[in-house]
Amino acid sequence: MTLHRFQPRRYHSTIGSHEPELRIGDGDTVATTTIDAGGRDRNGDVVAQGGNPQTGPFFVDGAEPGDVLAVTFDRLTPNRPSGYTGTVLAENVVDPIHVRTLPASRLLSWAVDVEAGTVRPQDVETQEGSSFAVPDSLRRLTLPLAPMVGCFGVAPQRGEAISTATSGRHGGNMDYRGFSAGVTVYLPVSVSGALFHIGDGHAVQGDGEIVGTGIEISFDVEFTCRVRRGRSITWPRGENADWIFAVGNARPLDQALQHATSEMVRWLEEDHGLDATAASILMGQAVHYDVGNVFDPAYTVVCRMSKELLGSLR
Amino acid sequence: MTLHRFQPRRYHSTIGSHEPELRIGDGDTVATTTIDAGGRDRNGDVVAQGGNPQTGPFFVDGAEPGDVLAVTFDRLTPNRPSGYTGTVLAENVVDPIHVRTLPASRLLSWAVDVEAGTVRPQDVETQEGSSFAVPDSLRRLTLPLAPMVGCFGVAPQRGEAISTATSGRHGGNMDYRGFSAGVTVYLPVSVSGALFHIGDGHAVQGDGEIVGTGIEISFDVEFTCRVRRGRSITWPRGENADWIFAVGNARPLDQALQHATSEMVRWLEEDHGLDATAASILMGQAVHYDVGNVFDPAYTVVCRMSKELLGSLR
Amino acid sequence: MTLHRFQPRRYHSTIGSHEPELRIGDGDTVATTTIDAGGRDRNGDVVAQGGNPQTGPFFVDGAEPGDVLAVTFDRLTPNRPSGYTGTVLAENVVDPIHVRTLPASRLLSWAVDVEAGTVRPQDVETQEGSSFAVPDSLRRLTLPLAPMVGCFGVAPQRGEAISTATSGRHGGNMDYRGFSAGVTVYLPVSVSGALFHIGDGHAVQGDGEIVGTGIEISFDVEFTCRVRRGRSITWPRGENADWIFAVGNARPLDQALQHATSEMVRWLEEDHGLDATAASILMGQAVHYDVGNVFDPAYTVVCRMSKELLGSLR
Amino acid sequence: MTLHRFQPRRYHSTIGSHEPELRIGDGDTVATTTIDAGGRDRNGDVVAQGGNPQTGPFFVDGAEPGDVLAVTFDRLTPNRPSGYTGTVLAENVVDPIHVRTLPASRLLSWAVDVEAGTVRPQDVETQEGSSFAVPDSLRRLTLPLAPMVGCFGVAPQRGEAISTATSGRHGGNMDYRGFSAGVTVYLPVSVSGALFHIGDGHAVQGDGEIVGTGIEISFDVEFTCRVRRGRSITWPRGENADWIFAVGNARPLDQALQHATSEMVRWLEEDHGLDATAASILMGQAVHYDVGNVFDPAYTVVCRMSKELLGSLR
Repeated sequence: MTLHRFQPRRYHSTIGSHEPELRIGDGDTVATTTIDAGGRDRNGDVVAQGGNPQTGPFFVDGAEPGDVLAVTFDRLTPNRPSGYTGTVLAENVVDPIHVRTLPASRLLSWAVDVEAGTVRPQDVETQEGSSFAVPDSLRRLTLPLAPMVGCFGVAPQRGEAISTATSGRHGGNMDYRGFSAGVTVYLPVSVSGALFHIGDGHAVQGDGEIVGTGIEISFDVEFTCRVRRGRSITWPRGENADWIFAVGNARPLDQALQHATSEMVRWLEEDHGLDATAASILMGQAVHYDVGNVFDPAYTVVCRMSKELLGSLR
Repeated sequence: MTLHRFQPRRYHSTIGSHEPELRIGDGDTVATTTIDAGGRDRNGDVVAQGGNPQTGPFFVDGAEPGDVLAVTFDRLTPNRPSGYTGTVLAENVVDPIHVRTLPASRLLSWAVDVEAGTVRPQDVETQEGSSFAVPDSLRRLTLPLAPMVGCFGVAPQRGEAISTATSGRHGGNMDYRGFSAGVTVYLPVSVSGALFHIGDGHAVQGDGEIVGTGIEISFDVEFTCRVRRGRSITWPRGENADWIFAVGNARPLDQALQHATSEMVRWLEEDHGLDATAASILMGQAVHYDVGNVFDPAYTVVCRMSKELLGSLR
Repeated sequence: MTLHRFQPRRYHSTIGSHEPELRIGDGDTVATTTIDAGGRDRNGDVVAQGGNPQTGPFFVDGAEPGDVLAVTFDRLTPNRPSGYTGTVLAENVVDPIHVRTLPASRLLSWAVDVEAGTVRPQDVETQEGSSFAVPDSLRRLTLPLAPMVGCFGVAPQRGEAISTATSGRHGGNMDYRGFSAGVTVYLPVSVSGALFHIGDGHAVQGDGEIVGTGIEISFDVEFTCRVRRGRSITWPRGENADWIFAVGNARPLDQALQHATSEMVRWLEEDHGLDATAASILMGQAVHYDVGNVFDPAYTVVCRMSKELLGSLR
Repeated sequence: MTLHRFQPRRYHSTIGSHEPELRIGDGDTVATTTIDAGGRDRNGDVVAQGGNPQTGPFFVDGAEPGDVLAVTFDRLTPNRPSGYTGTVLAENVVDPIHVRTLPASRLLSWAVDVEAGTVRPQDVETQEGSSFAVPDSLRRLTLPLAPMVGCFGVAPQRGEAISTATSGRHGGNMDYRGFSAGVTVYLPVSVSGALFHIGDGHAVQGDGEIVGTGIEISFDVEFTCRVRRGRSITWPRGENADWIFAVGNARPLDQALQHATSEMVRWLEEDHGLDATAASILMGQAVHYDVGNVFDPAYTVVCRMSKELLGSLR
């Protein structure tokens, strides 16, 4: 149960079987930092090429192919006072004919106040060098801070190195607002040590990441890794205080939803004593779906079930 | 502001320019009943062919093509003590290979207690004549009653008569759990009188209607119709105490989401003083998506925005 | 085996259970005309509202629900010297970001020479009143005449009246270039008399109808209707000298392809003596797919098998 | 213009920036072999793990990021007398409800006679060890030999190593029957030397690869690599004697078609002197689409234009 304080020296734009940056024990905690999607650190300095650069990978002792890596996000906190977003809806989230009327996208700066727990758009120049004035109609806009991590995962199988632009069974760029502090995520281990990567923090994000960004910012993160031996899963899973959830990553959304739904069925069958019919009956009247992202190459759909409801069945 | 008590004499399995069953004034309220998706009434008697038979249509004085019909669901209450559901996930909501393991679907009866506000699966024979025992693992299952209406709409344009199995710009079989009492829905009027239809009540339904049914039951309904002249919309909209929402109906989910997103942009532009960029910025960090149904020929996605947040901008 | 010469008096913009325009016997032939997609006749006069107005319906004696109507297109010939097309790719057939660069769409006129068997773009004003000059780069463009019918079908079930903008199990606006003279199409009968409709002739069309039109023109048509009793099918089918083919209509293309593939399996099983495995083996190495349209609300995919190959198995 | 005779020593199950196996000059030809999708060589021996193992990569002198690598398939010839296929349609190519009736898939052996130019199913045990009798209904089945290569590509950008199960802008597992001898393919170069990989030969394949395989077999291959400097492309392209074609890889098919269509527009604009409108007009009435595969994680759609037609415009 060691706490490792780790200072990243390099970043990866794929999730793959890269040389481990740190080796940790089963149950250990790592306190480290992530840089923003554009490669800027807590000081606003560019320290890596953009595209969701990842901190890690972390080699977890004892994790072997066929196991599950459980990662609890103990802390996800922005570590600088401003982030940025796109300003125009992605072309793929509106009706094709609607694209004809979309303005050009710029970058907008947001003031992020961790103490106050708020974010607000601001007129200052973005770190990317373009200035964009806050529209008058949004001068009073304040949103509650809701930090989440956009991209994390473990090395995929067969030597793949998968771009941090996209996602799959290994995790990746899922951009789901539910990946917040307090959540434990479960990932299918494909290589010895699992090789966990993490990056792409958002101070806030709407469902779908439909302007192509959340409020992109660097983070202080703390997470704890545990190995669940012989507990094979197919797609990422997670849980928080109230819900268990399964994650599907694919295009179209229909296929992402199929992956998430099938994974939830397997979970209910394996761990909750329901057969295929009982799982169907329950899910049919009690399931919730969330849209993770509809911007990245693979979209993300989450299938949720209430832990209180599941507990009431026993 | 008349209250019309209306006893249906016939039902329709399409939403179209059928002979009006009742003519009402702008602002009038109708108290009537709907039968369940299989055509059974409050007594369990089959009074119409199955497939979401609709009560109505109701001709609303003053509604003309290009207007909007606003319908407030004042009351949606099951009017009998039992409903039924399917027992197996629909083939299209799981991974294709997963279909190979699905059992055959049956019908399950549910006890619906309006007073207690609960629903519970029960062993009694279903009204459809097949008996299906509650799985032991679900013997303790109780869900809170959450009535909603699966299918409603107005006559579409150009003489179409659209099956109540599906949905479109006119409304139809959207099976969205958010269509509950207290909601006002907005529908684009295509013919004189709008010709509002309603049916297919569910005592409870999970997101997606993934077993092909909610808890199907007959309803006592009360709704109030108002005409908004010259307020053209493209897709159904709605609002409740906390949210405004836009509805897209299509396959795949991606296209349904595009319709809903574009409709929300138009709404924010037209009624909330935001231009395309401001609407994008706000939606990007604050939008919510719901999955209505992923079972019917057209799927349904809902795009929601907080009324409190919109109010805070002024 | 009567030949009926029929002069249309009205046109329909839905395919549904409309009052029959003509009653014919099983095996009879009808010689009639169709107007273009915009409602213009052989003289260029607007005689109906646009949107693929249909000639018919024709009531075929003896056709009952559960039967199949076989319609042979004996003759499909443009009956005026010019047609028109759109000039810009539909927004939904290019990458979403590509839509930002699409110019506005106009109408372009094409000279149609039935004798010579050619079509060529021309500078004359279109019948729709806008003039559009042939781009210099296309001054030498000549395409071989290849007439086909974009939209036809029979009344759907349960009282539906389906817009001629779209398609389904009943047929409809499939815009498949393979629906040319010499083809026999098979349609599932849902109402007494089948109620066959036809319209929307194209002098030429590329795969997909990706500018939203073929070369839209009025036709002289001749077709022969035969009833196949008790030969239930689920989706439209067809055959020509070389191929049998099954048609799926849906979005996305994936689902249209699933419909077409499943229909071909059923055909091989029922009529060609193959079981599920033999049909799979054969189709796996010998099937062809065509893209009908990717413009209309429902897309169209065609699954083809060689008649020579099927014959060689016996 | 050297001819390199190359004997592979290892194979890759990703396409990525692997150590080059051979360095060749711009314009050089390589004569080598590929093993089948299951990792078996010309003798039927397993020499690599299954999953479309690739021969290569080949480093082509002078190829730099932003260039195009042109590869002409001079020869693609099966080098052993038998291949194998699956026997059941993939679950994703039929209607979801149809999956319930699919039998289990086996492996079927096919006799491949290069001299005679034919393939025929046969009763002998497959190399994979399971025997499967030819269904009686297919005892007379003979198909013409039509060799094609299922998977090839160049190293993708940003250090990705992409599984040979799937495809993308770099090429990959496209399973398009049009990739046959005589074709020249064009691939976007992302790394120095391009790093060309090739494997997964099929003696025959139907459109879509809908049983999950073509007739899988090892090949003798000969191909010539040329660098086109500064000729940036986005998606793979190709040409044969009669057609130029652009390839899109994605799910759903709709998106693959969008990629292919946009790529063809760019081609016509850049190399054929057409502006966006002229390209649209021409494609609208003359384009062809082919379905590559609908089995792999990314589907493949090909957009074709006639070279004779393009030549006639000048």
